[in-house]
Amino acid sequence: MRITFIGLGNMGAPMARNLIKAGHAVTVFDLNPQAVSALVEAGARAAGSPAEAAREAEFVVTMLPAAAHVEAVLTGLQGVLNGVPKGVPIVDSSTIDPASARRLAEKAAAHGNPFADAPVSGGTGGAAAGTLTFMVGADEALFKQAQPVLQAMGQNIVHCGGTGTGQVAKICNNLLLAISMIGVSEAMSLGASLGIDPKVLAGIINTSSGRCWSADTYNPYPGIIETAPASRGYTGGFGVDLMLKDLGLAIDAAKGAHQPLMLGAVAQQLYQMWSQQGQGKLDFSSIIQLYQQPH
Amino acid sequence: MRITFIGLGNMGAPMARNLIKAGHAVTVFDLNPQAVSALVEAGARAAGSPAEAAREAEFVVTMLPAAAHVEAVLTGLQGVLNGVPKGVPIVDSSTIDPASARRLAEKAAAHGNPFADAPVSGGTGGAAAGTLTFMVGADEALFKQAQPVLQAMGQNIVHCGGTGTGQVAKICNNLLLAISMIGVSEAMSLGASLGIDPKVLAGIINTSSGRCWSADTYNPYPGIIETAPASRGYTGGFGVDLMLKDLGLAIDAAKGAHQPLMLGAVAQQLYQMWSQQGQGKLDFSSIIQLYQQPH
Amino acid sequence: MRITFIGLGNMGAPMARNLIKAGHAVTVFDLNPQAVSALVEAGARAAGSPAEAAREAEFVVTMLPAAAHVEAVLTGLQGVLNGVPKGVPIVDSSTIDPASARRLAEKAAAHGNPFADAPVSGGTGGAAAGTLTFMVGADEALFKQAQPVLQAMGQNIVHCGGTGTGQVAKICNNLLLAISMIGVSEAMSLGASLGIDPKVLAGIINTSSGRCWSADTYNPYPGIIETAPASRGYTGGFGVDLMLKDLGLAIDAAKGAHQPLMLGAVAQQLYQMWSQQGQGKLDFSSIIQLYQQPH
Amino acid sequence: MRITFIGLGNMGAPMARNLIKAGHAVTVFDLNPQAVSALVEAGARAAGSPAEAAREAEFVVTMLPAAAHVEAVLTGLQGVLNGVPKGVPIVDSSTIDPASARRLAEKAAAHGNPFADAPVSGGTGGAAAGTLTFMVGADEALFKQAQPVLQAMGQNIVHCGGTGTGQVAKICNNLLLAISMIGVSEAMSLGASLGIDPKVLAGIINTSSGRCWSADTYNPYPGIIETAPASRGYTGGFGVDLMLKDLGLAIDAAKGAHQPLMLGAVAQQLYQMWSQQGQGKLDFSSIIQLYQQPH
Repeated sequence: MRITFIGLGNMGAPMARNLIKAGHAVTVFDLNPQAVSALVEAGARAAGSPAEAAREAEFVVTMLPAAAHVEAVLTGLQGVLNGVPKGVPIVDSSTIDPASARRLAEKAAAHGNPFADAPVSGGTGGAAAGTLTFMVGADEALFKQAQPVLQAMGQNIVHCGGTGTGQVAKICNNLLLAISMIGVSEAMSLGASLGIDPKVLAGIINTSSGRCWSADTYNPYPGIIETAPASRGYTGGFGVDLMLKDLGLAIDAAKGAHQPLMLGAVAQQLYQMWSQQGQGKLDFSSIIQLYQQPH
Repeated sequence: MRITFIGLGNMGAPMARNLIKAGHAVTVFDLNPQAVSALVEAGARAAGSPAEAAREAEFVVTMLPAAAHVEAVLTGLQGVLNGVPKGVPIVDSSTIDPASARRLAEKAAAHGNPFADAPVSGGTGGAAAGTLTFMVGADEALFKQAQPVLQAMGQNIVHCGGTGTGQVAKICNNLLLAISMIGVSEAMSLGASLGIDPKVLAGIINTSSGRCWSADTYNPYPGIIETAPASRGYTGGFGVDLMLKDLGLAIDAAKGAHQPLMLGAVAQQLYQMWSQQGQGKLDFSSIIQLYQQPH
Repeated sequence: MRITFIGLGNMGAPMARNLIKAGHAVTVFDLNPQAVSALVEAGARAAGSPAEAAREAEFVVTMLPAAAHVEAVLTGLQGVLNGVPKGVPIVDSSTIDPASARRLAEKAAAHGNPFADAPVSGGTGGAAAGTLTFMVGADEALFKQAQPVLQAMGQNIVHCGGTGTGQVAKICNNLLLAISMIGVSEAMSLGASLGIDPKVLAGIINTSSGRCWSADTYNPYPGIIETAPASRGYTGGFGVDLMLKDLGLAIDAAKGAHQPLMLGAVAQQLYQMWSQQGQGKLDFSSIIQLYQQPH
Repeated sequence: MRITFIGLGNMGAPMARNLIKAGHAVTVFDLNPQAVSALVEAGARAAGSPAEAAREAEFVVTMLPAAAHVEAVLTGLQGVLNGVPKGVPIVDSSTIDPASARRLAEKAAAHGNPFADAPVSGGTGGAAAGTLTFMVGADEALFKQAQPVLQAMGQNIVHCGGTGTGQVAKICNNLLLAISMIGVSEAMSLGASLGIDPKVLAGIINTSSGRCWSADTYNPYPGIIETAPASRGYTGGFGVDLMLKDLGLAIDAAKGAHQPLMLGAVAQQLYQMWSQQGQGKLDFSSIIQLYQQPH
C-alpha cells in the first residue's frame, strides 16, 4: 500500500521503518532533513511538504509532539488536506487532547477524509520492535481499514470507540499510572523509613491489594526490579517531562468536562516540583527521590 | 495446644473458631458476653479476665480494635501479663501503629514473654474461610513457633522482619490501596465523562501500565467487576471508616518518621469528606461517587 | 477624546457608561444588539464591526470574556487592527493569560499600535461606581497616556511593569484569594465543629496572624460579616465558575513557567468539585459548604 | 499573690519573670536545674516537685511542650493535683489538643480545682515584653479570676468560651496561618517567575483581596518586609518544626471531629517535606524556598 508517514522523531522513525519492512511503499515528511535522509536510506521516498507527500497516498499516518503540530501538518497551507485524495484515511498516532482529535476529525471529514486517533503505548522500545499498543478512536469501518496497517507497527490494536476515545483511553491510563507511581513511592519510602526491608515490602504489596504495575514491574525503589529504571539510576524509560505533558492533557480535559481530579492535580504538581529541581529528563519513577531527600 | 484468644469481634470470633476446629484447646475472653457464649457453644472455655484466660496458656492471640485496647488487655491490672506463664508467646493480630507494637513487645519482654505483631488481610470472609494473610513481625525463632498456629487461621503466613514490621507492611500496603482506589476512581470518572465506554476503558487499563488490584479486581465503577462491591451498591467489603483508621495509622507513623506523604494525606481527607457526608459504612470503593455527584 | 469600547457585558457596559459621563465621545461594538442599543441610548455611537468602530479612535478599550475573544476582536478580518489608525493605544481590560497578552502586544506593535493589559478588580459594583482597580502592564509612556482615561472608570490605577504584568498581578492575587478563602473555610469549619463560637473565632483570627481579607471582609461563615455573600445565601459576589476561570489561568501560566503550585492546584479541584455539584453560580465563598455537609 | 509556675523553657522563663516583676511571690519548678537557678536569681523560690511547688499556691500556671508533659505535671504521683489546695485555679498556657485540655479540666475538677486552657501567641519576643495574647477557655468566673494574673504577662486576654476553646482558637488560627503562608509563597513565586517585580506584586496584594498577615507583615519573599525573617535568612521567628507541631494538633483534632481539611493536610505534608530536607529549624516562611529550587 502507498502510505504517507509524517513525523520522524524517536517514535515516528522506527514506526515508519516497520511499515517499509512490511512491504509498504512509504513516503515521508519531516522538518529535520537528517531524519528524512535516514528513512530514505531505509527505502522511503521523501516529499517537500505534507501536501506533496500525501498526493498519491492510500493511507496517511502522523506522529507529532503536540496538537498544534498535527493541526499545522493537516490543515496548513501545505498541509495534508491540501494534497490527499478524497476518501484516504488519516490516522494520527500523536498523544493529544480528545477535543483536538475530534476537531481534526471534523476538518478531515469536511475534506472527505476519515480520521482516526490512535495514540500508542510501549515507548521507543516498542516502536522499534513493532510491539506497540494502539488505542484507536474511530468508527467500525475505519477501524477495520486501519487495523492491518497498524499491525505492521504494533502487537495490540484496541478499538476504544468513536473518534477521540483513543486519546481518552491513553490519558486516563497515564493519569492512573502517574498517581500509582507516586502511591508506590510513598508506600515504599514510608516502609523503608519505618524499618522494613524494601524487598520484603514489595513482595507483600505484589501479592496483596496494593498490587500494581508501578510496584511489580516498574518499582521506583532501587534494587527491587532489576530491569526497572530505578535499578539503573532512573535513566531510559519514560521521562518526568513526558509524564507532565500527558498529565497536563488529562487535567485540561477534566477541566473541560467539569470533572474534578484531586490526586491527579497533586501528582501533576509533584512531578512539576521535581522537574523544577532539574530532574525532568530522568525516568518518572525517580519521583520517589522527592520523598527521600538527605536530612 | 492450649491457646488463649482475646477479642471476639467480626474478625476475632471466626479466627478463634478455626483454632478450635484445628483441635486446639481454646480459652476466650471478651467484654461482650454474647460473643463469649457463642464461642463457648463452639467448644471454647470462657475466662473472667485476660489474666485468668492466660493463666494456663501455651500461646496467646489478641485481636482488638486499636492500640489502646491491646495495651489495656496486655498490661492492665487484670491483663494477660499478670497471668501468663513466662516464655509463652503473645501474638497480636490487631492493626495498630508500629511504635505501639514495639512498645508492647518491650513490655512483654520485661515479663519474659516473646511478642509478635501479626496483622491480617483478607477481611471477615478470609477470617471465616481460614484464608487470611498474616504479616508477622518477630524474630526468626518466634516466627517459626507461631507459624503452625497461624496456619490454622490463614493461608499465607509472611515473615516481614523484626517486631513492628508486620504492622509496617500492613499500613504501607493499605496506604497504597487507598491511593490506588482513588486513582482508579479519577481515571474511570474522567473516562466516562469524556465519552469512552467504562468497560472498554477498564479493559485497556487492565492490560496497560495503569493495571492494579483496584482496577482489575475491585473496580469502583459499577458493572465492571461482577463480584466487586461496586456491583452491589457498595455494600459489604471494607468500609470507608475502616480505611480511614488504617490511613490514620500510616499518616501518624509517617509523622513520627518525618516522612512526607502527599497523596496519602489528600486521600485521607477525601475519605474523611466522604465519611462526613454520611457514607462511612459503605465500601471504600464508593469514594468514586465523590467524583460523580449530580449536576 | 474619541474612545472605542468593545465588549458590553456586565463589566464592560457600566465601564463604557462612565467614559461617556466623563465627556468622552464613545463608539461601541458588541455582538449583542440589545447591549449596543442600551449604550446608544446613553449617548454612544454604534459601529458594525471592531474595525469600523476603531476607524477614527484616539483610544481603544476592550473588555471580553477570554483570550480567544480578544484575539478575534483585535486580529480578525474585521478586527480593530484592520481599522485603527497607527499610534492609537489599545488597552485590554479582559482577564487573560500573560502569554496571550504579550503575544497580542507584539501583533499590535507590528501594526504600529501600543498595547497595554489592564485587568481590573472590584466587580460589577466597582464598574458601576467607577471605583475599579486597574492593574496595568505597559511601558512608562503608555501608562501615562492611559492613566487619565482609566481614571474615568476606576479609582486606583496601578502600574505593574511591562506588558503582561497587569495580568500577572491579577492572577497571582486571585490565586492567593482562592487559597485563603478555602483556608478560612477550613479554619472556621474546624472551629465550629470543635465547639467555639464562630464569631469569637473570627474575632481572634482577625487580630492575629490568620488575619486576611477572606476572614475580616468576606468571611464565608454565615452571620459573621453582614455585608458578605455568606450572610445572604451566597448570592451576588464573585461566582465559583469565575474563580475557576482565574485559577485556571494561574495554573496554566505556572505550567508554562515550570512553577509548581500545590495548594493552588488542590484549590482548583475543590472549586471544580463544588461546581460539579451544581454550585458554580454561587459566590465562591460558598466553598465552605463543601466542609459542612449534613451527616 | 502566691503563684506557682511550672515549665521554664524559652516561653515559660520570661513569663515567670514578668509575674515576679509584677510583684507576685512566684514558686517555680522545672526538670532543668539551670533554668530554675536563673529564676531563683530573679527572685523566685524553687521547689522539688510540682506537688511541693503547688502546696501553698493561690494560682498555678503551667507552660510545657506537649499534652503528655501537662498530664504528668498535673496528675503524676508528685503532680500539682497531689499538692495544690482545693479551689486554687490552674491555668495551662501550653499549646495542646482541645480534647486533652478538656480531659485535664475534668481531672482538676475532680480534685476541686478550676482549670483553664490559655495558650498564647506572640512568640519569645512577646513573652519577654509581656505583650502576649492569651486565648482563654474557661467559664466566666474563672476567666475573671485569671485575667489580672495573665495581664502581667500579656497585653490581650481573650475569652474564647468554655474549657478547650482557647486551644481551639489557637489551632484554628495557626491552621489558617500555615495555609496562608504557603498561599503567599505560591503567589509570590509565580509572580516572580512570570516577570513581575515582587515588591510591586506585594504592594498590589496588600491592597487587594489577597491581603493577609503572611503577605503584609511577614512576607516570605526576601527583601519585601525588612523586619520579616525572609530578610534575614529565615532565622529567628517561628520554626518549621513548631508549625508542624501545631498543624499536627489541628489535623488530629479534625480527625476526631470527622472534619475534612484538604489544604491543611497538604500544607502539613509540604512543611514535613521541607523539614525532611533539613530545614526544620528555619522560620516557617522559608517554605517559599520549596518553590524556588535551582533548575
